[in-house]
Amino acid sequence: MSHEVLGFDVTADALLEKAKRDGAETMWDRKAAMKASCGFGEKGICCKNCSMGPCRISPVEGKGAQKGICGATADTIVARNFARTVAAGVSSHSDHARDIIHVLHMASEDGNYKVKNPEKLMKLAKEWEVDTEGKEIYQIAHEVAEVALMEFGKPFGTQRFIKRAPEPRQKIWKDLNIEPRAIDREVATILHSTHIGCTSEVDSLMDMSMRTSLSNGWGGSMMGTEFTDIVFGTPTARSTEANLGVIEENMVNILLHGHDPSFSEMVVLAAEDPELMKLAKDNGAEGINLVGMCCTGNEVTMRHGVKIAGNFYQQEMAIVTGAMEAVLVDVQCIYPALPKLAECYHTKFIATSPKAKMEGATYIEFNEEHALDITKKIVREAILNYKNRDRTKVMIPQQKSKAMLGYSVETIIDHLDKVVNSQTDVFETVKPLSDVIWAGVIRGAAGIVGCNNPKVQHDNSHITIMKELIKNDIIVVTTGCAAQAAAKAGLLTMEAKELAGRGLREVCERVGIPPILHMGSCVDISRILDLVSRVSKERGLDNSNLPVVGVAPEWMSEKAVGIGTYVVSSGIDTFLGITPQVTGSARFVDILTNQLEDKVGAKFFFEEDPTVCAQKIMERIEEKRDRLGI
Amino acid sequence: MSHEVLGFDVTADALLEKAKRDGAETMWDRKAAMKASCGFGEKGICCKNCSMGPCRISPVEGKGAQKGICGATADTIVARNFARTVAAGVSSHSDHARDIIHVLHMASEDGNYKVKNPEKLMKLAKEWEVDTEGKEIYQIAHEVAEVALMEFGKPFGTQRFIKRAPEPRQKIWKDLNIEPRAIDREVATILHSTHIGCTSEVDSLMDMSMRTSLSNGWGGSMMGTEFTDIVFGTPTARSTEANLGVIEENMVNILLHGHDPSFSEMVVLAAEDPELMKLAKDNGAEGINLVGMCCTGNEVTMRHGVKIAGNFYQQEMAIVTGAMEAVLVDVQCIYPALPKLAECYHTKFIATSPKAKMEGATYIEFNEEHALDITKKIVREAILNYKNRDRTKVMIPQQKSKAMLGYSVETIIDHLDKVVNSQTDVFETVKPLSDVIWAGVIRGAAGIVGCNNPKVQHDNSHITIMKELIKNDIIVVTTGCAAQAAAKAGLLTMEAKELAGRGLREVCERVGIPPILHMGSCVDISRILDLVSRVSKERGLDNSNLPVVGVAPEWMSEKAVGIGTYVVSSGIDTFLGITPQVTGSARFVDILTNQLEDKVGAKFFFEEDPTVCAQKIMERIEEKRDRLGI
Repeated sequence: MSHEVLGFDVTADALLEKAKRDGAETMWDRKAAMKASCGFGEKGICCKNCSMGPCRISPVEGKGAQKGICGATADTIVARNFARTVAAGVSSHSDHARDIIHVLHMASEDGNYKVKNPEKLMKLAKEWEVDTEGKEIYQIAHEVAEVALMEFGKPFGTQRFIKRAPEPRQKIWKDLNIEPRAIDREVATILHSTHIGCTSEVDSLMDMSMRTSLSNGWGGSMMGTEFTDIVFGTPTARSTEANLGVIEENMVNILLHGHDPSFSEMVVLAAEDPELMKLAKDNGAEGINLVGMCCTGNEVTMRHGVKIAGNFYQQEMAIVTGAMEAVLVDVQCIYPALPKLAECYHTKFIATSPKAKMEGATYIEFNEEHALDITKKIVREAILNYKNRDRTKVMIPQQKSKAMLGYSVETIIDHLDKVVNSQTDVFETVKPLSDVIWAGVIRGAAGIVGCNNPKVQHDNSHITIMKELIKNDIIVVTTGCAAQAAAKAGLLTMEAKELAGRGLREVCERVGIPPILHMGSCVDISRILDLVSRVSKERGLDNSNLPVVGVAPEWMSEKAVGIGTYVVSSGIDTFLGITPQVTGSARFVDILTNQLEDKVGAKFFFEEDPTVCAQKIMERIEEKRDRLGI
Repeated sequence: MSHEVLGFDVTADALLEKAKRDGAETMWDRKAAMKASCGFGEKGICCKNCSMGPCRISPVEGKGAQKGICGATADTIVARNFARTVAAGVSSHSDHARDIIHVLHMASEDGNYKVKNPEKLMKLAKEWEVDTEGKEIYQIAHEVAEVALMEFGKPFGTQRFIKRAPEPRQKIWKDLNIEPRAIDREVATILHSTHIGCTSEVDSLMDMSMRTSLSNGWGGSMMGTEFTDIVFGTPTARSTEANLGVIEENMVNILLHGHDPSFSEMVVLAAEDPELMKLAKDNGAEGINLVGMCCTGNEVTMRHGVKIAGNFYQQEMAIVTGAMEAVLVDVQCIYPALPKLAECYHTKFIATSPKAKMEGATYIEFNEEHALDITKKIVREAILNYKNRDRTKVMIPQQKSKAMLGYSVETIIDHLDKVVNSQTDVFETVKPLSDVIWAGVIRGAAGIVGCNNPKVQHDNSHITIMKELIKNDIIVVTTGCAAQAAAKAGLLTMEAKELAGRGLREVCERVGIPPILHMGSCVDISRILDLVSRVSKERGLDNSNLPVVGVAPEWMSEKAVGIGTYVVSSGIDTFLGITPQVTGSARFVDILTNQLEDKVGAKFFFEEDPTVCAQKIMERIEEKRDRLGI
């Protein structure tokens, strides 16, 4: 398999050398300058929640400060910091979803944004009991959007989507009093409860963290996916290419980076404009080459096959190639360092969101009303910048891999329908998937997600765990930067089935899928929740009964902590390849990695060695199978 | 003046000695154990917003790490940390208000909670255009409450109360695009914008901080005051006593500590129950003695004259007296250390709010539905605990001062009406106040507010600044722990006018008020905003034109940062006696203490020396007078 030699890190060395020659600073320079990181911060025992402090607890028990000035113990401080991290992650994901819903709210027949998937809209209207009788589609769209917007702020009641969870799971939430209420309310309330002089009780902080996280998993994030599909279409299987090699020598290269597709979808449209395509040619380029990065990259590749330049780690490298005419960003995970880095080259760096104005960037505010005009103007800027490219400073790595992606739940079910026995079974269910798991042909499933983190070798944990699991007949679904790692490593191809165990290989062949399914952006982890819950319901079980796990091998963002918490709270064990900043409290670590199982039927595992992590995942999956007697 | 010798810190030494003897740990032990605080944290240049870090920026320019791994500069990190501090403060204040509004929403003719101030309710209904025609008062109450609850989460529009601001002020907010939207939304959005890879632009972070803070100042906090008045009555002038000397040797002492009066109001009711009063006597006590602390103390003293045991700093000392049968807490500013401290004595420590469960506390969840039953049960527990008091461990300081308080805006206007010339003027306005300021009889006004902070001597900054200002004919209004400092120092008495300059003294005499007016709890800073805005509107000016300032001499909480920011954003200069954790960015310091003036007509001043601070306040007030030509 030629793909095996591709993938992680091989592109980096030469580009880092080049960056040095170009006088361009990268994260590696900054990481080296940082030297040791703060031990208190790493352990989560530093509290900045009031100005009597900052306080920091001695990591040695019985020696030095054992409590903050107010009396907060390491346990309390760790749990409060964790809760606030969850809140920030939940806010980020959900606030992104809010913007997408606002887009639907202003969609119109003849506007920039339309309803691309009316079936999904009608289904949601029905689920939410929005009266559709005699209403035209845009009226329904606006009413459904209004109902959705209220999920962020309604004074009474809980999230609508929790009803999608298996019933035993709903009961657990009810009994624990962690059914999530309005999303923004949960965020504000948890900030309140972690204010000086509020909650010190650690279990209560954990419960509130779970409730807040669920408001995203079964609220903001799930609405993000639903509404993105409604406005921009539900992803279907398609092929693309991934890694820095997708940057073209003789084309106008434009990098789309961030998370919210409302902007990038319009860039895709603008780049297809005949006038602009002609302008590119008139300026000596062969055409316009859009490439994506991070979850904006995932969104546009899932729906349009836009090539993937790379994941989180490679955002600087894409610029260091010297061949990028413009970097267009929306929100989240965009290094503040990029505008300055872009100055080392001809690259235009354009920030577009009022939620992410960036020092040193050209700021062109994007708004939905003038969406296409604005993106056309921006693409034009990129084209006109092509002539400024310094050819002596160009170095584009050749590495790229083919990848299949676009596996929404709907698309997976479409594929499963192929193997349905039409005489005995019904179509449009996850039963075939459930059946092969129960039969043991597939041992279980893992959702591998999350970011890159310089604490570990780039993509290595993602790829090591993925390969190990598919080799052992565990099917992998993936989103976010993990999915892009898989794409670069050639694991999202039909050929990758050769790396799978016999059972999984057979399934891949019969269903016509790769052993690892790219399900979308990090917001789309809700698709994984949906899929798992369908299997649970198919079997009349709870998620915690299934041989499935979540894995975040190289996570780094607050969003990831929020996600991990809702995944565990949804009954799915979650393996973290980067230990969160909680080790200063043995008690809180025990809650996360042990006690939670009694409470919600799932827990966290911390394991930094990817090979060992894969081993533990397999053990856990077999344990779950044993408990089921399958 | 005998009051002069009373007041700050005189009660502490003996009690600290006693604590040592009793083997009781206090904040002083913890502060000593903490040794040096973290220099990075103090300067605000430590970032924990993702797990690539924690990162910390070298405080020496050009040496060591100058950026986080993502490239965030000290400027960005400081501004993001500031923004999140504002968000936490706003959440705390506003979430408290939310609970009060829920109380009104469940108020009924024959329930535990009633509408005590129907006039204020009707006025608000009119202001918010809630149709009252033919509806009975509780229906109106519930409808107004629902409108209010939507202010936290409505998907469209801005805060209703911003229309209360002077028009030039509203225009400033509109032009800067900082009109606050739904409160919880602002909180979630600012957490999103400070997530890794979002906003790095410092001015944008400042603008978002202002917008978020305004959602509290002219939203949550203002609703907190309004609805508390509607449910529990608008405070009127009354007298009380303050300092630890209010704890009674021969009574059942119950300390009410926290911020949200829904619980403590019911305790006040329960303590008046004849059966419980008899039970106290049957148990050998002379009666039940409720005493308050922090803002719960302020709430119940403003409406019932409940005595004030002290402010933030004294929460441990109240227990160390050995004479406290029960400490009952709701939310905010309650040391997590208290339950353990209570164990050194017979004191029962009872936490009551799901938003502030505390390690080691007895938890009796309070809910509005069974409010009186629950509080009666709790008071009974306290009474039955009287017999367990160890008389050999009792030491109650004798210090206490008389105080006048209850100066709501309505009460102030009532007083002003006394000096209205009924032939030429109209009643029920702030014109008399405006007139004496314009005449120069009073030079200006200062709102002195905020907490205690062990970084400075207890109450010293509050009292020093207050005395200096009234001596120079600047009238002082005060809330929160600052107000309690004034009460303990005897400055809230009619006699304190002797400490005032000639002009202010004359005003005090004619109007019949102390030179320092206790306006309530920290949520009630909205009363100060209201008062200032009325004077502005009376003169057709903006708040920033008036010779008025805000001062937080000993602040310590995130709430205080949120408040300071909305006060400045409302056009009122704010003096901070504790330097916020922003000094790691000279640029951000310049924004706060200089550039903001161009933007919003007011700015922050950092001044830790209270005498110098008072001097600067007076200079600034004279500067404002000069600009007005008065």
